[in-house]
Amino acid sequence: MTSMVAPINMGLQFRGNWCNVNKNKGREFLKPNFNSSCNTNIALNNKRRFSLLVTASSQCSPGRIMGTINEIKHVPMIHPAAGKLANENKQHTTLVTLFRGRFVKDRSVYRQIFFVRSYEIGPDKTITVETLMNFLQETCLNHMSNCGVSQNDFGATHEMDLRKLIWVVTRIQVQVQRYSKWGEEIEVDTWFDIAGKNGIRRDWIIRDHYTKEIIAKATSTWTMMNRETRRLSKISEEVRQELVPFFFNKLAIAREEIDHQKIHKLTDSTAESFRYGVTPGWNDMDVNQHVNNVKYIRWILESVPREVLEDYKMTSMTLEFRRECTQSDLLESMSSSSSNVTGASNNDSVNTKPDLQYIHLLRLQDTKAELVRARTEWHLKQNHK
Amino acid sequence: MTSMVAPINMGLQFRGNWCNVNKNKGREFLKPNFNSSCNTNIALNNKRRFSLLVTASSQCSPGRIMGTINEIKHVPMIHPAAGKLANENKQHTTLVTLFRGRFVKDRSVYRQIFFVRSYEIGPDKTITVETLMNFLQETCLNHMSNCGVSQNDFGATHEMDLRKLIWVVTRIQVQVQRYSKWGEEIEVDTWFDIAGKNGIRRDWIIRDHYTKEIIAKATSTWTMMNRETRRLSKISEEVRQELVPFFFNKLAIAREEIDHQKIHKLTDSTAESFRYGVTPGWNDMDVNQHVNNVKYIRWILESVPREVLEDYKMTSMTLEFRRECTQSDLLESMSSSSSNVTGASNNDSVNTKPDLQYIHLLRLQDTKAELVRARTEWHLKQNHK
Repeated sequence: MTSMVAPINMGLQFRGNWCNVNKNKGREFLKPNFNSSCNTNIALNNKRRFSLLVTASSQCSPGRIMGTINEIKHVPMIHPAAGKLANENKQHTTLVTLFRGRFVKDRSVYRQIFFVRSYEIGPDKTITVETLMNFLQETCLNHMSNCGVSQNDFGATHEMDLRKLIWVVTRIQVQVQRYSKWGEEIEVDTWFDIAGKNGIRRDWIIRDHYTKEIIAKATSTWTMMNRETRRLSKISEEVRQELVPFFFNKLAIAREEIDHQKIHKLTDSTAESFRYGVTPGWNDMDVNQHVNNVKYIRWILESVPREVLEDYKMTSMTLEFRRECTQSDLLESMSSSSSNVTGASNNDSVNTKPDLQYIHLLRLQDTKAELVRARTEWHLKQNHK
Repeated sequence: MTSMVAPINMGLQFRGNWCNVNKNKGREFLKPNFNSSCNTNIALNNKRRFSLLVTASSQCSPGRIMGTINEIKHVPMIHPAAGKLANENKQHTTLVTLFRGRFVKDRSVYRQIFFVRSYEIGPDKTITVETLMNFLQETCLNHMSNCGVSQNDFGATHEMDLRKLIWVVTRIQVQVQRYSKWGEEIEVDTWFDIAGKNGIRRDWIIRDHYTKEIIAKATSTWTMMNRETRRLSKISEEVRQELVPFFFNKLAIAREEIDHQKIHKLTDSTAESFRYGVTPGWNDMDVNQHVNNVKYIRWILESVPREVLEDYKMTSMTLEFRRECTQSDLLESMSSSSSNVTGASNNDSVNTKPDLQYIHLLRLQDTKAELVRARTEWHLKQNHK
């Protein structure tokens, strides 16, 4: 199969003035180059499909954030009125920093703190995988905004925008050591790096904010797609040069634990449990009327046997995004313990053999076209924190 | 119908040491009275059923929060180590206060600030009603925890616990002036008061944190239920005395705008649009394996015509909770424009006549037992901010 069927409509997109951070981490704005040649429509390996992590708003343009920070830095403390203004701005900055995160490690890593809320936990009182994935998405977006490069909703770099390119995520792997409880504070670190010729790797490390215990790790691969032709694209040298200043060469998940192994395709005969008639709701849609990829996780879990959800904790998950869907689609979710199919991974998230391994498939009910393949590992709750 | 069929399993529950705030707002701890007589199993009007706003965890016991605040207050600044400790504690307190809220107006009102996250917005880039309801739930729970009365997961007062009583919400009305966008900061104020002989009224006012513009208002009524017999209960004098110090007599929604009107029951013949086969997922469950009531809103909206969701903004919503459901239930969602049925309200949320009014019903697919009745009002998007 070489052609893409209804791939995603948008991805992580940087647009507008682009800020270049040089090796000494100074910042200078590059003048947009309207004469840049476009280098789109380059079809890559289309076997891997993808979906969308991103929704955004002009309300949180980085200019607003950075501007406020800069204003505070330069407010002269001359008289009480100025002092009051500076104080108010400082409070605002503190709030923004606490809620939206900040750069750490000399701008290589972006960190955001989350307080686990009552509605972000599941029936076992711990954070749901869906919430965890939402936190990853949120830090990813705030990171991009705070790079100071995005003037529009979706953050395409100037060179990407010239080429009508958007980001798409193709694969994500998450290892969970412990699920946080309501009221716990966790901090999410994220960064990205080049991955091969045409990909970006984005990693995350999630810690308990106070003990600094690592509670989860994640890695993902992204590529670019032409938003009109819907074909995958190489990262041009111009786009690459925009991204270079932010690259950080570090692995959240040790190389030997990264799950590169093929996820076996489930079929009607190999699947053990099914959930038919899964229907995306209005609020599962992103701003482009396509399903936000975090939503897929909920549907994947709907075909996992209830006793597994009750008695086991998912310690590892690899998702391979192949295609998007819209609100009018009817989906079916299928799962099977991997003893039934080929596809055990080399991904050992808690350094112990998992008690259960599952393979999943989310597909369109009518055409049977694949949306997401997934592999999960589970530990009995009493054996997992 | 006088008997309750599978009502909710738990509500907002206060347990453990109870803190009494006197008229001067001083705090003293009451000794638990283990000789208190139980006064349970008193059946009230069972026509109104209810569901659950509450999930919680021992991780966020108020003792932990209050303790930290008190520690900071009394740390003597003697030497650098103590200073460092005080500083760390202060940072912690700042963080906790920012993320979990604090009392304002001399402990009558509890306020929490939220930063609208990327995954809390809908396809039109503004906060979803479900998110808004989650914010109401979160402030409600943090308010109760910060009253210093809850030593357990669900916050039952000592006297309630003695009587095996839990809170249940019977009705909630929300008026929305404007839907916030991603990145906007909003502050939610909440308080509660006695409502008649056997109810509690909890109100909320939601503002833009910076402009203080009121963007939404809500009011709700709660009663108590015996967690074993599942029957509604009067609020005994002992329980009432525990709650009195926190009562605040103020209406978020003006008396003339409060929607007391009966919500007409939709039938197969009066409903215009249906969504069959709605299935609660694992993560829709609360800690007692029952559906969290905020989830109902998503399902109610699933039977609203797509063009209404796209072109209109919901400006008002009244929900009447009648019964809970579990993961094994199959639901159906029904809607009808209220011109088709009796049931227009006196609730005019934006001081203009709504462009559309809808009546909704969420019921079990097999027995047709009602879960939630709802009434919503909508304004064309260009007419609504």
